[in-house]
Amino acid sequence: MSETPVAIIMGSQSDWATMKHAALTLDALGIGHADRIVSAHRTPDRLVDFAKSARDAGFKVIIAGAGGAAHLPGMTASMTPLPVFGVPVESKALSGKDSLLSIVQMPGGIPVGTLAIGKPGAINAALLAAAVLALGDAELAARLDAYRARQTDAVALEPVDEEPAK
Amino acid sequence: MSETPVAIIMGSQSDWATMKHAALTLDALGIGHADRIVSAHRTPDRLVDFAKSARDAGFKVIIAGAGGAAHLPGMTASMTPLPVFGVPVESKALSGKDSLLSIVQMPGGIPVGTLAIGKPGAINAALLAAAVLALGDAELAARLDAYRARQTDAVALEPVDEEPAK
Amino acid sequence: MSETPVAIIMGSQSDWATMKHAALTLDALGIGHADRIVSAHRTPDRLVDFAKSARDAGFKVIIAGAGGAAHLPGMTASMTPLPVFGVPVESKALSGKDSLLSIVQMPGGIPVGTLAIGKPGAINAALLAAAVLALGDAELAARLDAYRARQTDAVALEPVDEEPAK
Amino acid sequence: MSETPVAIIMGSQSDWATMKHAALTLDALGIGHADRIVSAHRTPDRLVDFAKSARDAGFKVIIAGAGGAAHLPGMTASMTPLPVFGVPVESKALSGKDSLLSIVQMPGGIPVGTLAIGKPGAINAALLAAAVLALGDAELAARLDAYRARQTDAVALEPVDEEPAK
Amino acid sequence: MSETPVAIIMGSQSDWATMKHAALTLDALGIGHADRIVSAHRTPDRLVDFAKSARDAGFKVIIAGAGGAAHLPGMTASMTPLPVFGVPVESKALSGKDSLLSIVQMPGGIPVGTLAIGKPGAINAALLAAAVLALGDAELAARLDAYRARQTDAVALEPVDEEPAK
Amino acid sequence: MSETPVAIIMGSQSDWATMKHAALTLDALGIGHADRIVSAHRTPDRLVDFAKSARDAGFKVIIAGAGGAAHLPGMTASMTPLPVFGVPVESKALSGKDSLLSIVQMPGGIPVGTLAIGKPGAINAALLAAAVLALGDAELAARLDAYRARQTDAVALEPVDEEPAK
Amino acid sequence: MSETPVAIIMGSQSDWATMKHAALTLDALGIGHADRIVSAHRTPDRLVDFAKSARDAGFKVIIAGAGGAAHLPGMTASMTPLPVFGVPVESKALSGKDSLLSIVQMPGGIPVGTLAIGKPGAINAALLAAAVLALGDAELAARLDAYRARQTDAVALEPVDEEPAK
Amino acid sequence: MSETPVAIIMGSQSDWATMKHAALTLDALGIGHADRIVSAHRTPDRLVDFAKSARDAGFKVIIAGAGGAAHLPGMTASMTPLPVFGVPVESKALSGKDSLLSIVQMPGGIPVGTLAIGKPGAINAALLAAAVLALGDAELAARLDAYRARQTDAVALEPVDEEPAK
Repeated sequence: MSETPVAIIMGSQSDWATMKHAALTLDALGIGHADRIVSAHRTPDRLVDFAKSARDAGFKVIIAGAGGAAHLPGMTASMTPLPVFGVPVESKALSGKDSLLSIVQMPGGIPVGTLAIGKPGAINAALLAAAVLALGDAELAARLDAYRARQTDAVALEPVDEEPAK
Repeated sequence: MSETPVAIIMGSQSDWATMKHAALTLDALGIGHADRIVSAHRTPDRLVDFAKSARDAGFKVIIAGAGGAAHLPGMTASMTPLPVFGVPVESKALSGKDSLLSIVQMPGGIPVGTLAIGKPGAINAALLAAAVLALGDAELAARLDAYRARQTDAVALEPVDEEPAK
Repeated sequence: MSETPVAIIMGSQSDWATMKHAALTLDALGIGHADRIVSAHRTPDRLVDFAKSARDAGFKVIIAGAGGAAHLPGMTASMTPLPVFGVPVESKALSGKDSLLSIVQMPGGIPVGTLAIGKPGAINAALLAAAVLALGDAELAARLDAYRARQTDAVALEPVDEEPAK
Repeated sequence: MSETPVAIIMGSQSDWATMKHAALTLDALGIGHADRIVSAHRTPDRLVDFAKSARDAGFKVIIAGAGGAAHLPGMTASMTPLPVFGVPVESKALSGKDSLLSIVQMPGGIPVGTLAIGKPGAINAALLAAAVLALGDAELAARLDAYRARQTDAVALEPVDEEPAK
Repeated sequence: MSETPVAIIMGSQSDWATMKHAALTLDALGIGHADRIVSAHRTPDRLVDFAKSARDAGFKVIIAGAGGAAHLPGMTASMTPLPVFGVPVESKALSGKDSLLSIVQMPGGIPVGTLAIGKPGAINAALLAAAVLALGDAELAARLDAYRARQTDAVALEPVDEEPAK
Repeated sequence: MSETPVAIIMGSQSDWATMKHAALTLDALGIGHADRIVSAHRTPDRLVDFAKSARDAGFKVIIAGAGGAAHLPGMTASMTPLPVFGVPVESKALSGKDSLLSIVQMPGGIPVGTLAIGKPGAINAALLAAAVLALGDAELAARLDAYRARQTDAVALEPVDEEPAK
Repeated sequence: MSETPVAIIMGSQSDWATMKHAALTLDALGIGHADRIVSAHRTPDRLVDFAKSARDAGFKVIIAGAGGAAHLPGMTASMTPLPVFGVPVESKALSGKDSLLSIVQMPGGIPVGTLAIGKPGAINAALLAAAVLALGDAELAARLDAYRARQTDAVALEPVDEEPAK
Repeated sequence: MSETPVAIIMGSQSDWATMKHAALTLDALGIGHADRIVSAHRTPDRLVDFAKSARDAGFKVIIAGAGGAAHLPGMTASMTPLPVFGVPVESKALSGKDSLLSIVQMPGGIPVGTLAIGKPGAINAALLAAAVLALGDAELAARLDAYRARQTDAVALEPVDEEPAK
């Protein structure tokens, strides 16, 4: 496997607070990743350059996070044959509902596998990338299995009072 | 004024049933227009070529219609300084609500002037283009004033029964 | 070009926190603007006076911001042939979704070019006004090109940790 | 009571299929009404003339129906002290949700009493107008009481099969 | 006119923070009002008693505020011929969208004139009640005209900086 | 068990096309039911009579279906200690979204167990009533188990082409 | 009646702040309950074990709370004939709207009686469970009647100022 | 590569009209697939069996389509480490909005890559599966590149009139 099989791209610095959770999850699974700001709207040339060269650069999976009229995941997918997973970043006025629809409602022909809005989606984009990479990497498959098993084991049997009921 | 100051672009042939109303409205105002299919997702190179060369090609205003995860208006706006007006085409499952949010919720920095979903939006994109062009074309301004006056005069004073109440 | 080609109007003083960003953006581009409170509902006469005299007053483009049942942009557009750009101000209960629909869903015949909800929309209304004015003002066109280029250059290549992940 | 205490206004001929039900309901209650097309956007002068003169013309209550970015009820209310009742007409793409929000979300200071989307709303606008007029008209109050009693009596005790279950 | 022509009813004590604005507005117009908690769900007998006796008790108009599955306005309207104006109180999870639909979407036959969500709606319910009462009370009509004129005069011509742009 | 342990009530004859599926499902399980039209808004006295006497009449569970501003389930629940299950009937303009929110968003204190919009909800209200009654009726429990087993067995392993792909 | 006739299950520890209100309500009614964390997604085996053995374990009613893509209530209902009541926990980005639709929109065949989003829903799930259990437990029925009577008595007649109007 | 690397599962026969488009797309790319009906709610044992054995059965990617409270994709993902792609099938009342939220809003820990509502989503799920499989299959990668190139070439330059403007 390539040293950095995953590219995490995002529309702006402000998306990093969300997308960092994809990076941390990949780290936990021992998967290399490159983290880049690529604004579909403010840096369209960078977008074209990145997307068209992503496969040759050795990336296997692209995770793209963006908010509002989120065009980054879909436009990236239009210019690379690699699987693209999209993370709708929570937007100010509409709480990420605009981000979600802008990413998931792609027309037939160009797919973006879309995850949940916000932090859970960023974590899951990394896990989905791991599941994809694990198809060709038995060691990673074992690490992912272990990650999932630990996750299962960590669920307590009964709830505990942490704070006053609200 | 350029012979064809307006470009009408749309994501697919199926959008033409809607966008044709922009064309007809421009025709009624005597404004030349080029009508093109430019799919942001299926023909990204065509999109880049079109958007980057639009000003030099003599276009003054761009009208872009698309549905679903509608990236065409915003991506065009990212690559041209010309004013871009977006028309959300009515989508099958979500009735154009996804198209609307994907077009209007652009981040600060790259504007798309968005019109209503569907046919009214296509007509209005043409009228807004006309209003813009009329700023530098007194004859067109007069034609637009006349168009608006005729529109006002065409409103009957009282409703008439056209069909059984439903 | 007129000294103050742009009018920024808004429904109430409380909209200024949002609409000020349109003013600041026009300032950055060297475009003169008049800022006025025009309440469609509380000052309908002022609305009629403003809209009907806007062209003769030398304005070229009108930016109108309002929230809730936001009638100001559409009603202004009904009484002037000038291009009107609408900014949906974020409302308390519905986060500007009501403002957006009240502005964008105009019937065929009277267009309002609508921008995003809130601050990004205010900035973009100014940039769209600039794009329109630049069609007839080469110096402004150059300033707008430079503004966009600076905006592109300001996008960092990689995200940086600014605060703890959340 | 004035011969025609109620004005039914609507934004276009196409709204009549809905608003006719207000007319029919007023007829059933023996309440006179004038039916007018007043387009806020295409005939703003007619709107101003109508609204400003409505009280002097002898109207007591105004019923206003409109669809999409429905500004007619609110703008009428801004120019008359008479009670205004708004009927959101079902719109094509958004099924009247845009109409509803454009009518009901008025800012504090100018009220529009809003009814349901479509035909039920048109019927109820007439009934609400009747309730208002009945406050000063004992004969109408008796007719309205009788109307409501008949309505109650008309509700069958048990459902009957009218068509195959679907 | 009755000493207390308006009843303000609400579903719970927690609605008072909103409905108080209806009371204050009626106070400003010199209109008497009774303020009651009537829970459609927790005190259905009180609801029946109130609604059925409201006309005989001398009330002319009922203002009813409630949140969530807001049944109070519609159920009151089902048991009194008086005009009922409903105020959707902002709910915790859905911001009053549930309250709005539960109040406004009444079936044909029983009307509730619905105002905006929250405080603006409470103020406007009072103003609409005043408009109704003013039809039979010339002194109130004059006070309402004056109220509206003061409201118009209070709108400044230009916005002022009150806080840092956000 | 009572001969007719379940009451199916609905707001109007038009709801029967949906609620009939609750009746048919109860029939299939051998559970007696009474089917009544009870309009919360047009027949409030009937509603009070029904709800207050439901327990004494021998009913164990109430299934209530209604559409739009659907107050029937919640108001019934406010006047009986019996379990009430609500079925949101699909409404014309808003497809039952208003019905759903009007039924499910009950305030703490008065519960309505809400099922899906339309026919699936009607079927499931009957099945949920059966599950409740089966707690005290072993024979019914066996019949319900058999019904569920048949339902499981009826699911084919592979899809078959029934019509041209669309 | 079983010592612990009610099982309260929830998808994660974080749901306890909401679901605790179901537990407190059952406590107030003297109904025993077991509180368990069962994650449909992270502990699917635990879900299967719990749901399949719930009847034999002596539970009569299951209350299940979950947020986001909330699969716990429906999946539990698929594997037990016991009545299942679902509580949509308020989610971060979409305020529980996703939770609500994921729980309530079950297909015909497997019912989940759904309550309101958040705390009111948790309280009401407990009250609905009590109503079900009271069908076979006269003492509980009396306690539930008393609970409801106290609830009715606790509603004040008039609102009081608790805080400054907002 | 396995003979049938992709499993297409769906909640009911009625989903096949949508999911067939995934099958047809895989066929076009020469990718083997097994098509199965697995109802999360009516056949939970089948779901558990399928999901737990999917990897050992040689599947590499799972495509799962479901509508309404769509639990199939997420529950499958909870019991297999394979990548799962979800297709929200258009539902009757809510047009697939419930399906979309039930699939995409998964909690952190268990990912489902979600595609668009309906047919475009089914096509894209197949294309995304192909992109994943192509990472380890150069011949498939070439076929996918060719598919995408043909798709690009098939986009006409200009729209043509196919039917009367509507």
